[in-house]
Amino acid sequence: MAETMLAAVVREFGKPLSIERLPIPDIKPNQILVKVDTCGVCHTDLHAARGDWPTKPNPPFIPGHEGVGHIVAVGSQVGDFVKTSDVVGVPWLYSACGHCEHCLGGWETLCEKQEDTGYTVNGCFAEYVVADPNYVAHLPATIDPLQASPVLCAGLTVYKGLKMTEARPGQWVAVSGVGGLGQMAVQYAVAMGMNVVAVDIDDEKLATAKKLGASLTVNAKDTDPARFIQQQIGGAHGALVTAVGRTAFSQAMGYARRGGTIVLNGLPPGDFPVSIFDMVMNGTTIRGSIVGTRLDMIEAMDFFARGKVKSVVTSGKLENINTIFDDLQNGRLEGRTVLDFRS
Amino acid sequence: MAETMLAAVVREFGKPLSIERLPIPDIKPNQILVKVDTCGVCHTDLHAARGDWPTKPNPPFIPGHEGVGHIVAVGSQVGDFVKTSDVVGVPWLYSACGHCEHCLGGWETLCEKQEDTGYTVNGCFAEYVVADPNYVAHLPATIDPLQASPVLCAGLTVYKGLKMTEARPGQWVAVSGVGGLGQMAVQYAVAMGMNVVAVDIDDEKLATAKKLGASLTVNAKDTDPARFIQQQIGGAHGALVTAVGRTAFSQAMGYARRGGTIVLNGLPPGDFPVSIFDMVMNGTTIRGSIVGTRLDMIEAMDFFARGKVKSVVTSGKLENINTIFDDLQNGRLEGRTVLDFRS
Amino acid sequence: MAETMLAAVVREFGKPLSIERLPIPDIKPNQILVKVDTCGVCHTDLHAARGDWPTKPNPPFIPGHEGVGHIVAVGSQVGDFVKTSDVVGVPWLYSACGHCEHCLGGWETLCEKQEDTGYTVNGCFAEYVVADPNYVAHLPATIDPLQASPVLCAGLTVYKGLKMTEARPGQWVAVSGVGGLGQMAVQYAVAMGMNVVAVDIDDEKLATAKKLGASLTVNAKDTDPARFIQQQIGGAHGALVTAVGRTAFSQAMGYARRGGTIVLNGLPPGDFPVSIFDMVMNGTTIRGSIVGTRLDMIEAMDFFARGKVKSVVTSGKLENINTIFDDLQNGRLEGRTVLDFRS
Amino acid sequence: MAETMLAAVVREFGKPLSIERLPIPDIKPNQILVKVDTCGVCHTDLHAARGDWPTKPNPPFIPGHEGVGHIVAVGSQVGDFVKTSDVVGVPWLYSACGHCEHCLGGWETLCEKQEDTGYTVNGCFAEYVVADPNYVAHLPATIDPLQASPVLCAGLTVYKGLKMTEARPGQWVAVSGVGGLGQMAVQYAVAMGMNVVAVDIDDEKLATAKKLGASLTVNAKDTDPARFIQQQIGGAHGALVTAVGRTAFSQAMGYARRGGTIVLNGLPPGDFPVSIFDMVMNGTTIRGSIVGTRLDMIEAMDFFARGKVKSVVTSGKLENINTIFDDLQNGRLEGRTVLDFRS
Ligand SMILES: [Zn+2]
Ligand SMILES: [Zn+2]
Ligand SMILES: [Zn+2]
Ligand SMILES: [Zn+2]
Ligand SMILES: [Zn+2]
Ligand SMILES: [Zn+2]
Ligand SMILES: [Zn+2]
Ligand SMILES: [Zn+2]
Repeated sequence: MAETMLAAVVREFGKPLSIERLPIPDIKPNQILVKVDTCGVCHTDLHAARGDWPTKPNPPFIPGHEGVGHIVAVGSQVGDFVKTSDVVGVPWLYSACGHCEHCLGGWETLCEKQEDTGYTVNGCFAEYVVADPNYVAHLPATIDPLQASPVLCAGLTVYKGLKMTEARPGQWVAVSGVGGLGQMAVQYAVAMGMNVVAVDIDDEKLATAKKLGASLTVNAKDTDPARFIQQQIGGAHGALVTAVGRTAFSQAMGYARRGGTIVLNGLPPGDFPVSIFDMVMNGTTIRGSIVGTRLDMIEAMDFFARGKVKSVVTSGKLENINTIFDDLQNGRLEGRTVLDFRS
Repeated sequence: MAETMLAAVVREFGKPLSIERLPIPDIKPNQILVKVDTCGVCHTDLHAARGDWPTKPNPPFIPGHEGVGHIVAVGSQVGDFVKTSDVVGVPWLYSACGHCEHCLGGWETLCEKQEDTGYTVNGCFAEYVVADPNYVAHLPATIDPLQASPVLCAGLTVYKGLKMTEARPGQWVAVSGVGGLGQMAVQYAVAMGMNVVAVDIDDEKLATAKKLGASLTVNAKDTDPARFIQQQIGGAHGALVTAVGRTAFSQAMGYARRGGTIVLNGLPPGDFPVSIFDMVMNGTTIRGSIVGTRLDMIEAMDFFARGKVKSVVTSGKLENINTIFDDLQNGRLEGRTVLDFRS
Repeated sequence: MAETMLAAVVREFGKPLSIERLPIPDIKPNQILVKVDTCGVCHTDLHAARGDWPTKPNPPFIPGHEGVGHIVAVGSQVGDFVKTSDVVGVPWLYSACGHCEHCLGGWETLCEKQEDTGYTVNGCFAEYVVADPNYVAHLPATIDPLQASPVLCAGLTVYKGLKMTEARPGQWVAVSGVGGLGQMAVQYAVAMGMNVVAVDIDDEKLATAKKLGASLTVNAKDTDPARFIQQQIGGAHGALVTAVGRTAFSQAMGYARRGGTIVLNGLPPGDFPVSIFDMVMNGTTIRGSIVGTRLDMIEAMDFFARGKVKSVVTSGKLENINTIFDDLQNGRLEGRTVLDFRS
Repeated sequence: MAETMLAAVVREFGKPLSIERLPIPDIKPNQILVKVDTCGVCHTDLHAARGDWPTKPNPPFIPGHEGVGHIVAVGSQVGDFVKTSDVVGVPWLYSACGHCEHCLGGWETLCEKQEDTGYTVNGCFAEYVVADPNYVAHLPATIDPLQASPVLCAGLTVYKGLKMTEARPGQWVAVSGVGGLGQMAVQYAVAMGMNVVAVDIDDEKLATAKKLGASLTVNAKDTDPARFIQQQIGGAHGALVTAVGRTAFSQAMGYARRGGTIVLNGLPPGDFPVSIFDMVMNGTTIRGSIVGTRLDMIEAMDFFARGKVKSVVTSGKLENINTIFDDLQNGRLEGRTVLDFRS
């Protein structure tokens, strides 16, 4: 094994990441070391590198939380449920306390003592990453790491979000925004037996949604999506708003069916106006949802492994991470860019 | 039977109600006529009489939707599940379509074709009222109408709201606002096995909450309820906000436990700011809830009939309705004023 | 309109049905008259005609509860939600009381005062049938009645049964018995996003199950289904036993995953042995389920109307009902025989 | 610290336990050592010592799984969530794998790789016991160990069983058998806001049930409980059968309300007859439930700590375990006998 590794490091918020050669980190007795094969680039990495959110990471740190790789070292106290050469995913949830009400109830994503990969601990924009064996995803050896990477965060997030809409098979779910997250959401919803209406302002993206199985689409630039969806189907039982902006949010309030549930997946700063009068009259539920638990991950990966959901990915190089960040920020990317460390 | 009845009529929004003697209304073959014994005076009646809400009633009309009385006439097509002299409650939900998805699913309160007593059809501020036998509450003959009246709307509303928090027995629910609704909410929550923390700005009301079974109370004038509740109990699993104002609403966002549910029972005009970032990070659910279904009514009444929940009422006279409205509007009423038609 | 109609009448339990010309029945003000286009022949009709069950119908009566037809007369007190020439389905649940806890909770199929078509009231083995407008299924005018008939009972029953397994999209459900009910169950389960393992003792039927979307099949004649299913997938999250026999029932106990739910759809006489020790150790749930509610019907029909579920039907004539009963009893029928009254 | 400890050891199934002085066991880096203060004596200990069940423990072993004590040694790899002198409970579930679907979903009691205290590993009929810090119950320092011991298994089991009935506050639950488990069940049900009907054949026990808050009682020796409960309350929404015998089981089938759920808490050998016809017609659910998860334990202990549930205990001595077993087997014990090691 090599003694050093290439990594992209945030040295200062808002500055370009620095590509460095660093010592491969040591592991503690309860940790594993993973050689990273691929890692997707997520909007959250961008927010991390810029220090956008109220609770900030501490530079220097390595972002990246859609890592797929194989185990190259196992700590002395780790049980036999993992072993060297196992293929694993290293996701956003690096670890949780394991003892709080959330952890015990299968809701470790709500743990107040969680560590997050590429944020509070170093992540996968590096050739090697330390991981907690209790929180990695266990993947089949035959999986395509390039395709699998975006499932670890983007796929998981929308899959969980769809579950949280409580829409049942045969009911209607609206997917608002058909970018990277939205494309996955349409596929998951269809695989879950839901009827999908896709909402976007880009006809090409709506055409993609159709191809991925959406039954209805509406271009919110031309058509009032609330009126359209209420007329066509009497309102959506569930709505997944993948990119929360004021407009998308208030549209969803308008096209949800009475008693329906709107799930928010994005993390926009600032306050959004909501009409409590309407919410009470219509019995509407609004709910926030972030990533998913380990059990959600198994399920989301299973849909992927069974071919029900496909990722749209472009391969990228760690050395180009700053350009990729630039393109991501400016909306110039079609689908997910995944860093490939294998060649 | 008399040929005329006394009634309080809204002739023009915002004007005093006129006390009139009107012909007793005829019933259709599928209706019943109820002689009103008592009727509670609710904030909604005030909103109706002022035309406060976007969808307005059509004057002239008679408000009142907490009517308790007995059946004096049964239409020719009504089945034998009701009969003359039965004691019934005439609630807010006058009728629903019976065929839509909401009605078939036991959610008739979400029916888009509902009629509402004292709003879209004449209500119980009158000696007689026409009712739909399929939507009245069936009450024991021994019930005290004065006490039972507020259960029909205030009690039902908070009981349903508490159910919608999805807080389970043994979990913590915060009741925000210990006025008429809040006092009932504390009692229902305790009877449902929940632990209650009451939030208000009036020490006397908080003392009442304690007496009614609240385990904790916090005066939001002196103490930050979010910090207090997070410190004491790690946040509330559920929260019922009985009187939605900006402050009460944003406090609830702060004291809800991660994964918790905030239920809104009030109908304030205007938009309220919500931090979607917090909602997503904390996995919070916000939900609107209005009155309750017929099954909820049976349950809410059963708690009352078993003595688990008591109303705080003052008896009033129809002739004084304008004074009562005045006092209600200015917060001068302790507990519910219930019109008594029996003497 | 004709004055008489052809009907198949049970005059005595266990005797051949008598084909008779009878007066077209009158309707009450709250009823409708339906001209029957088609009606499926169900095992329940056989049980009714033989008086097999503890609670028996009262001869003479007309069986048949999978009727599709159009309304030809509407009672004077019926609301405007139905009108002449509407296409409707007349299902097993003729009516329910509308006021009990079950009816109010969207569980009218559990109503203790229900009437059942072709059992407690006359059914659809006749050119005309009286129906309760509140309980018929509302069908699109373009529906194929021959195909739709079996959905009214067979389809509805397995769809509801699958819901009652509480298996979620992506989980495994075992369908035990791939006869008429089982074939529909496989299709519904697949449309609901579940993974299906089919269990039968007939290779041809298992091949059909595969074609309809089952991921795994096991022939219980050669292979122990419990061992097979536990090995392959770690047990089934849910199981639907469409034809309950001792063997099928105890097999299901063996292949259910811990915490799994077994739903029974059949109505066999006699007692079945169950190991409570195993049930407690494995946290197993066993649950009975019969037909489905009106809301379930809307959903089951919607899957059918969207082409997700197809019926396998053979057209038959009322005059041949006794031969059809004979073939049904002796297992000589492939798919559903549907009486066609249209020619 | 002493070097040896007193323990009651099963050397051979069906033989008296031998009271021995053994070396205090060593702990591994991920374990803790607990000095036992008290340990309840449970029927399961009797079954273990006799080798009654299909999967048997391996003698020699020490039974006992209701241990309350304090930590005297913490392994080097254990995190800082436990420390010396913490008061903990050592329950039936010694450990689970932490990685299977059940463990990840908050259902570690269904883990197929679980270890069980006093069964597959040594238990608490000894002055010291080794425990897994991730699975012990964390108790307040002020708790009375004598009272708390039975909550660890008996209390937990009935609390979880009541949850699994899915009966809601205000609904009726039948508690069948008012022995040690049943007495706790009545208290938990009342604290959870349910209405309780108690069923037993001993008037004294029924009087106790009344005193503990049961609203109705029925002596099954004199009165048919099915007829009584159906007449009085229209059937029970949920039923908890604490001691499963053929009679108790078939009675429960009779007094459950349509759509109701019967939860079985006992572990009787042999098969029990069930009428599938009735189960399907009535939409009945039967469900097995064993002990409870760590989250259930927190909740069950919280009810106890808040004084809502009290144990009825008799203090005993380890030296007398064989007499206690004898009395237990012959039904001569009133309430729980708890071994007290403190004096
Ligand atoms: Zn991400
Ligand atoms: Zn935690
Ligand atoms: Zn009101
Ligand atoms: Zn409706
Ligand atoms: Zn049928
Ligand atoms: Zn009914
Ligand atoms: Zn025990
Ligand atoms: Zn496990």
